[in-house]
Amino acid sequence: MKVRILVSFKDSVLDPQGQTVKNALHTLGYRAIKDVRQGKVFEIDLAGATKADAEKIIPEISDKVLANPIIEKFTWQIIEA
Amino acid sequence: MKVRILVSFKDSVLDPQGQTVKNALHTLGYRAIKDVRQGKVFEIDLAGATKADAEKIIPEISDKVLANPIIEKFTWQIIEA
Repeated sequence: MKVRILVSFKDSVLDPQGQTVKNALHTLGYRAIKDVRQGKVFEIDLAGATKADAEKIIPEISDKVLANPIIEKFTWQIIEA
Repeated sequence: MKVRILVSFKDSVLDPQGQTVKNALHTLGYRAIKDVRQGKVFEIDLAGATKADAEKIIPEISDKVLANPIIEKFTWQIIEA
């Protein structure tokens, strides 16, 4: 089973990396871009795991390792059964 | 319109960051995890853009700014009309 986890800053947290990308795009003339938020994506191969296993493991590892729950949020989905 | 762009290494490119995360998870006892690939995610707010605009702009900025097309690939989708 393959799982995709998206980790991004909470909305209340400033994202200087995203701001820098936005500024670079404006400099290149892409004025339609009003905001950029950058985050991380993890694609994890869980061999032989069931959906119930994933529902236990993924939030655990996201909180412990992949994201900093004080400033980041995560969402996840199964992308391959 | 909000667009999400996922940027990750091509399958043929080694991902040392993902390997490090995998090793950390193994150390914590998560043995079911067979592979981890890490990438970047961008959420971009395109004010007043149509789907056609996005189809022109997003591949352009992905190739020029967000991803390195030599070693990275990207996929994108509209997440909010």
